[in-house]
Amino acid sequence: MTTRLSQLFVRTLREDPADAEVASHRLLVRAGYIRRQAPGVFAWLPLGLRVRRKLEAIIREEMAAAGAQEVHFPALLPRDPYEATGRWTEYGDGIFRLQDRKGADYLLAPTHEEVFTLLVKDLYSSYKDLPLTIFQIQDKYRDEARPRAGLLRGREFSMKDAYSFDYTDAGLDASYQAQRDAYERIFTRLGMEYVIVQADAGAMGGSRSEEFLHPTAIGEDTFVRSAGGYAANVEAYRTPRPEPLPIEGQPAPVVFDSPDTPTIATLVALANERHARDDRAWEAADTLKNVVLRLTHLDGTSELVIVGLPGDRDVDMKRAEVVFAPAAVEAATDEDFAKHPGLVKGYIGPWSDSGPVLGLDGSVTGIRFLVDPRVVDGTAWVTGANAHEKHVFHLVAGRDFVADGVVDIAEVRAGDPAPDGSGPVELARGMEIGHVFQLGRKYAEALELKVLDENGKLVTVTMGSYGIGVTRILAAIAEGNNDERGLIWPRSVAPFDVHVVATGKDAAVYEIAETLVSELDGAGYDTLFDDRPKVSPGVKFGDAELIGVPLIVIVGRSAAEGRVEFWDRRTGVRTEIALHEVLGALRNAD
Amino acid sequence: MTTRLSQLFVRTLREDPADAEVASHRLLVRAGYIRRQAPGVFAWLPLGLRVRRKLEAIIREEMAAAGAQEVHFPALLPRDPYEATGRWTEYGDGIFRLQDRKGADYLLAPTHEEVFTLLVKDLYSSYKDLPLTIFQIQDKYRDEARPRAGLLRGREFSMKDAYSFDYTDAGLDASYQAQRDAYERIFTRLGMEYVIVQADAGAMGGSRSEEFLHPTAIGEDTFVRSAGGYAANVEAYRTPRPEPLPIEGQPAPVVFDSPDTPTIATLVALANERHARDDRAWEAADTLKNVVLRLTHLDGTSELVIVGLPGDRDVDMKRAEVVFAPAAVEAATDEDFAKHPGLVKGYIGPWSDSGPVLGLDGSVTGIRFLVDPRVVDGTAWVTGANAHEKHVFHLVAGRDFVADGVVDIAEVRAGDPAPDGSGPVELARGMEIGHVFQLGRKYAEALELKVLDENGKLVTVTMGSYGIGVTRILAAIAEGNNDERGLIWPRSVAPFDVHVVATGKDAAVYEIAETLVSELDGAGYDTLFDDRPKVSPGVKFGDAELIGVPLIVIVGRSAAEGRVEFWDRRTGVRTEIALHEVLGALRNAD
Repeated sequence: MTTRLSQLFVRTLREDPADAEVASHRLLVRAGYIRRQAPGVFAWLPLGLRVRRKLEAIIREEMAAAGAQEVHFPALLPRDPYEATGRWTEYGDGIFRLQDRKGADYLLAPTHEEVFTLLVKDLYSSYKDLPLTIFQIQDKYRDEARPRAGLLRGREFSMKDAYSFDYTDAGLDASYQAQRDAYERIFTRLGMEYVIVQADAGAMGGSRSEEFLHPTAIGEDTFVRSAGGYAANVEAYRTPRPEPLPIEGQPAPVVFDSPDTPTIATLVALANERHARDDRAWEAADTLKNVVLRLTHLDGTSELVIVGLPGDRDVDMKRAEVVFAPAAVEAATDEDFAKHPGLVKGYIGPWSDSGPVLGLDGSVTGIRFLVDPRVVDGTAWVTGANAHEKHVFHLVAGRDFVADGVVDIAEVRAGDPAPDGSGPVELARGMEIGHVFQLGRKYAEALELKVLDENGKLVTVTMGSYGIGVTRILAAIAEGNNDERGLIWPRSVAPFDVHVVATGKDAAVYEIAETLVSELDGAGYDTLFDDRPKVSPGVKFGDAELIGVPLIVIVGRSAAEGRVEFWDRRTGVRTEIALHEVLGALRNAD
Repeated sequence: MTTRLSQLFVRTLREDPADAEVASHRLLVRAGYIRRQAPGVFAWLPLGLRVRRKLEAIIREEMAAAGAQEVHFPALLPRDPYEATGRWTEYGDGIFRLQDRKGADYLLAPTHEEVFTLLVKDLYSSYKDLPLTIFQIQDKYRDEARPRAGLLRGREFSMKDAYSFDYTDAGLDASYQAQRDAYERIFTRLGMEYVIVQADAGAMGGSRSEEFLHPTAIGEDTFVRSAGGYAANVEAYRTPRPEPLPIEGQPAPVVFDSPDTPTIATLVALANERHARDDRAWEAADTLKNVVLRLTHLDGTSELVIVGLPGDRDVDMKRAEVVFAPAAVEAATDEDFAKHPGLVKGYIGPWSDSGPVLGLDGSVTGIRFLVDPRVVDGTAWVTGANAHEKHVFHLVAGRDFVADGVVDIAEVRAGDPAPDGSGPVELARGMEIGHVFQLGRKYAEALELKVLDENGKLVTVTMGSYGIGVTRILAAIAEGNNDERGLIWPRSVAPFDVHVVATGKDAAVYEIAETLVSELDGAGYDTLFDDRPKVSPGVKFGDAELIGVPLIVIVGRSAAEGRVEFWDRRTGVRTEIALHEVLGALRNAD
């Protein structure tokens, strides 16, 4: 099929849109692929829709190859099933809710676990019906607090979501692996770099969970990986807990005056000055920083917790959110401190002159005291003494204080050990482009999806959930394939196979170009044909570079002598070839 | 491609769903095509999705042939554009509205005129860019008061909506005709009977408007047509206004006592008894019935109007709704009458002993008095005399009373004249399956879509809007193609080209069937293969009839001798043929 640029519903822009932060957003708007309708909500022009359909076709093929069957759910769904699993509430402000004319509650579904579960419950009742994997490619909605970066974090977006149903754990493992393999094939076909990282299941519940991250500086996710093969989303990284140290023989705690120590660095300097250790200097990692956080629970109640962590690390709020979910986490406010005079700001510690004050052994605050995994029994700390301008040395965990629990929310740093012993980790940024995980029986239990097993016994089904962001992947590909002049699509998803540009004002040139595009049509190529007679070659080339079809054929003055230019947009190389060599050149291109 | 029934995500039901009123709903649920999620909201199982995709492909092909380009808009749209055209308010309870986390208003779009207009405004600025027709196939939402009949009147439904943009009226005519022709081709390919009727543009505004109605007893629309080629939706039918009659020489009005005349029939009997005419008896059509209606305007205010119409006809409330739109219409209540003692219930008329009381010439009620088009000057009526148990004879329009206006809301009946003089009309029921209309400049004016014309002058664009209900057509096809045993799809949209049923328990039969389906696969057929070894032939045949693939091949006992049965589901004819004849039989089938 040939599409004439003179007829195509498109307008290319010379200027970047004002609200575009990233290259994909900028270029997809400028090249006429998408247009903004509302924050995080876009319309798709013909060019954009073509890329989207190609991407969807690849996903559908690989889903079919993985034995998944396509279904289609509405975006508008009733509250009840989401209430049954608790997600109606858990999603907080993150979803769009509405009521119909009768006042019944609905939502615009962010994902469809509940209704897929109910559909299978409606249709199936026996182990013989399983395993089953069903999927859809469908528009989803999330009321993001900060929709940004164009399609990368939209409020409406297209997703392929698949759900597997098995009645044994081994079955779930196999279904999970089939989707995971399909994802690897999809990203390979798209030529997208990806890293599979362990992920935290977060609000979705469940057990095994991996994310496909596309490494990119603009990614919103941070992940860690070791040379030995460990890779995890930073939220899923688990700090290895060291072995306890001997308590016996350690010096007794010593309280000391510590005015003018507003920072860990000033505290460490003072510690080394006042109470130098024999073996080595006190370091920031030897101090125990006690951070007060406010947790707000789903029922609206809230509580303070104190978290003790090595002073060289800050709390990673994203990690904290995952650990404390579904409660919301924030730093305690001055008001919170005012209500708890026992918390002496800047000097909070688990112990004072009169003994333990936080934690199991004698909390006087009524506030849970949790510690970083590195705070094992026998570790000695410099920390606050719960009195104005007082700290304490040699405070030993397990001797001088005992925590209420362990919580792993400190920031992860390059060089930290991989939990599987595969060496130190490095940190990188990535964009989530796929997510596979084992939901287990959470949804099936909440919605009572059971089948009869071989012995006629009712067993609860175990499920997996697998998502790929279609519109996000499209943006990620655009993000990774462009230059200062425009987009450069991989051939697998380019809106057209080839872009033929006729130049000049000579009617004969256009006739030759017409013959060429009809030959290309006959050979099964989807061609974009720039047939605009009154547009200058410069503008045409600029549009071709902006639109980004990877292979371009320029039919110009020398066409009369049977010569055209074959332009590879990816390498920038323009080669003069004979007209009759065009089909061969297209066939031979990568 | 071969799909094995043993693997297909489907479950056929022996029982009708409790809420199914019509055959299509009943059978699409029973055969495992769709499942209800909420009132008027459905999920699509693999079988249903296959039919939907085929239907969409046909529509896309014909849109491309008509030069329309595909785009895609979100369902979630901001309030502003719909506010600018007034539709945010006009739709009343009929649309879903919601707010985002910041309190901004959104709707789930019922149609997309506004945003298409704005998109073209964003991209185009010159007459050279026009004509343009763009379309999408997209899920739409309406908060129907009474979602019913399965997919026929849903709250979520898929529509192909196209919009044309021209800068001349002639251009609009051509664009309109192109879509109208495409619709004819689509319905012809689908084998759907249709009637193109004049339609009222209703809330959409605009001028020329035609509906494609599929004649069916369960249709929600009534239309009229004459043998001479006139066809109109009953809401669009316009009663021809007769020529006025001479007033001179007509008898003077005579008031008479009329107790015990609760109905038009009793009034007519009394009239003939008390005041017989020379030429012919008084008939119901000679009485003037004055009906009080309450109109509620968009701003919440309301008013009463009195409508005088021949006593043999009732008000058609659907016609009244169109005429009075955007006001809502209902019958006046006892409370309304109590507030207006001048309205003597059962005896309301435009005149009393003391002269005219309704209408321009001396309304004492402050209520507008409108009359049916048949009430022309010189017509004489038996009507109420505005006093308890009193009516009046010989009340002559234009002499004894003058109305405030004419309003055409009486019911239309078989035998009424076509307004174009093409003879009497007959009435029929139909289902709206397509709608084409000329919006004109209403949306372009409201949203300021102008282009520069050949003379460099800014002109407002003129638009057309063209809709086909994808999911409704699917249901209409199912509605018109079934029998007591199940669905019978036309080949153009059947979920599979052929359904191969292997019967019995003989492994050799299944091997032969396997060979056959792989041959069919090789020949490019989409095959549904009932490969279930433990299911009885009766159940398999029942499922085949319910699912409704039109061509079925039964591979049974005689397969060993190279014989199979070729079953045309449409005619019910089963013919034994040789295995090697199957491909030929499929090729030769209608």
